[in-house]
Amino acid sequence: MTNSTPASLNVEPRLLCGPGPANISPDVLAALSKPLLGHLDPDMYEILTELAGMLGAVYQRDENDGITLPISATGTSGMEAGIAALVDPDSTVIIGVNGYFGRRLVEIANRYHANVVAVEADWGQAVSNDALMEALAENPDARLMAVVHAETSSGVRHDFAELGDAMRDNDTFLMADCVTSLGGIEVALSDWGVDYAYSCSQKCIAMSPGMAPISISQRALEFMRGHEKPNTFYLDPQLLEAYWLTRPPAYHHTLPSPLVFGLHEALREVLTEGLEARWARHAEAGAYLQSAMAERNMELLADPAHQLPQLTAVLVPEGIDGAGVQKRLLREHGIEIGGGLPGAPAMWRFGLMGYNANIETADKVLAAFDTVMADAPTLAAA
Amino acid sequence: MTNSTPASLNVEPRLLCGPGPANISPDVLAALSKPLLGHLDPDMYEILTELAGMLGAVYQRDENDGITLPISATGTSGMEAGIAALVDPDSTVIIGVNGYFGRRLVEIANRYHANVVAVEADWGQAVSNDALMEALAENPDARLMAVVHAETSSGVRHDFAELGDAMRDNDTFLMADCVTSLGGIEVALSDWGVDYAYSCSQKCIAMSPGMAPISISQRALEFMRGHEKPNTFYLDPQLLEAYWLTRPPAYHHTLPSPLVFGLHEALREVLTEGLEARWARHAEAGAYLQSAMAERNMELLADPAHQLPQLTAVLVPEGIDGAGVQKRLLREHGIEIGGGLPGAPAMWRFGLMGYNANIETADKVLAAFDTVMADAPTLAAA
Repeated sequence: MTNSTPASLNVEPRLLCGPGPANISPDVLAALSKPLLGHLDPDMYEILTELAGMLGAVYQRDENDGITLPISATGTSGMEAGIAALVDPDSTVIIGVNGYFGRRLVEIANRYHANVVAVEADWGQAVSNDALMEALAENPDARLMAVVHAETSSGVRHDFAELGDAMRDNDTFLMADCVTSLGGIEVALSDWGVDYAYSCSQKCIAMSPGMAPISISQRALEFMRGHEKPNTFYLDPQLLEAYWLTRPPAYHHTLPSPLVFGLHEALREVLTEGLEARWARHAEAGAYLQSAMAERNMELLADPAHQLPQLTAVLVPEGIDGAGVQKRLLREHGIEIGGGLPGAPAMWRFGLMGYNANIETADKVLAAFDTVMADAPTLAAA
Repeated sequence: MTNSTPASLNVEPRLLCGPGPANISPDVLAALSKPLLGHLDPDMYEILTELAGMLGAVYQRDENDGITLPISATGTSGMEAGIAALVDPDSTVIIGVNGYFGRRLVEIANRYHANVVAVEADWGQAVSNDALMEALAENPDARLMAVVHAETSSGVRHDFAELGDAMRDNDTFLMADCVTSLGGIEVALSDWGVDYAYSCSQKCIAMSPGMAPISISQRALEFMRGHEKPNTFYLDPQLLEAYWLTRPPAYHHTLPSPLVFGLHEALREVLTEGLEARWARHAEAGAYLQSAMAERNMELLADPAHQLPQLTAVLVPEGIDGAGVQKRLLREHGIEIGGGLPGAPAMWRFGLMGYNANIETADKVLAAFDTVMADAPTLAAA
């Protein structure tokens, strides 16, 4: 079998300026190859406790208002864990849909046989909070309202502070997809009254992919405790709580210690920088890139009033081969940017996230983009 | 917030000789901190194709007999993915139960509302293949028979070659838990007619925890294609196939590239060593440790005819504080061994897995064990 065994990988470094993963700091990268530690090692318990505490601080979940921990799987697992634990077959679920990840929420709620009420907006527009509240008025027994805070497929920010206010006196649980927002723009779960939130590790948190931080309000936890167990065992938040947070822990799965160590280091960096400073850095880098794109007569997809700083969707100009530009950026400049996801208009997606949210990185991307676009006519689709 | 931010982790190296994770080679550890690569990077597709091919070779799944790929989550996710995709509410599922992981299969099948027929054996004994086939004769419409190939909680090997022969002409799907077997003892899915198998990355494969390699037969795939979608989206094998194996891929989740790189390197090492040589190395190291334990008058839990080489469960002698011995091995010698899982007799679990499956490692563990046991009377429980 030796003859057919592939060679060891030689991975060329990339500047990752698409929708994620983004680059991570040298310390976080190094943390991924610290010595392995067993999941039942007493030293590991301390690490888990510290990590969960830092994650709660980044999510701005008050200590007496529920729990925060990461699932040992990627971001979508956090989406599914919330649906699985909060929704029954035939529960009404109101979902804001203005892009790919809103659609994914619908897909998962459908798989769990929920009665889905989709409140739609065009790609690039925010879902109207008034329309969401109207849907709730028409479905007052809705179990859950779920909205994407930062739609990675279009670069649109949802106004969760406003939605949280409107939902304040309601029994319906409020869910926030914070995959692209956490660590990049303000997330304040307890202030906003968010019952369930999920995110990923590889965007503005600046760790590798592999973990899905979730946070659950006290009232949602109490609901889960009095409710039938979800089908899923791997993604059951109550089992995860008993493993991550209760001492002594009840064994659930074998923790991927490299990802735990990496996330610990990344969260340290987030909190050492300070949340407001980090949001300001993202805001500055994003505004700089967006203004540079406007100077180049590029059209941005997102409504300017709801434009995310960390994710900029740029419409591919007529006659340009968007995928060809992406390919040349990758092959000639080592820079990854994203294209559009299925169902989207033709676009490029530029991400300045976490470690990459700075003017210097924006300048590198812009310089390479200009070089490729200088002979873009040769890339025009036939 | 800076004041309360925890310090950077200083992880002391451990000799991991419990039920897993086990230590990994320096090259595999280094692969975890290769530069991140995006999940839609063309170079990544090649890596995924190579990795899936190597995994199929290690599982001994014939190329024309189905698929093999890893789930981006830990071993239990592979258990759940199989149940979710193959079983409906009220489907009859026959499960062999002789330890903690057989029980976990029952727990997950119950969560998916299956009609579970448990075929039990005592801890340390193998489940009888005759009894399994009797249960099948009584439940000829059973959708699935699931048995743990290597019960991590007791060190017992199941005879899957024999079970596969008995099941040959049956419509019932055959599932194998290969979490502790893959890479350590013979696994031959196509020869045995196993329809669905799952494993983990952190035991005899010698990578960190975080990935769950699964393999599905052609007939099980065809069943899935003609069947209702499972509730789970994250663990749906058909979505994973479209992402990992179909080209161009359909986006599903953001691959944890450190774990992909680590697993690629670890599988390279498995195949470069050769499967038979690797099994022989595990057999030699395990027999050596087991014989040394017998010389010390220690009683092994497993039936000798079904004793795994890679996992040795040793009963804690009367009057000895088993947890105290474990703690001293860890704190004074930097060696992790396991204790018993809930429901088990008092035991220690010694693992010589993957990179650690050799006489030299066994000798280190034995020397430390002897040192601690020399004053074990002082550890006797009150």
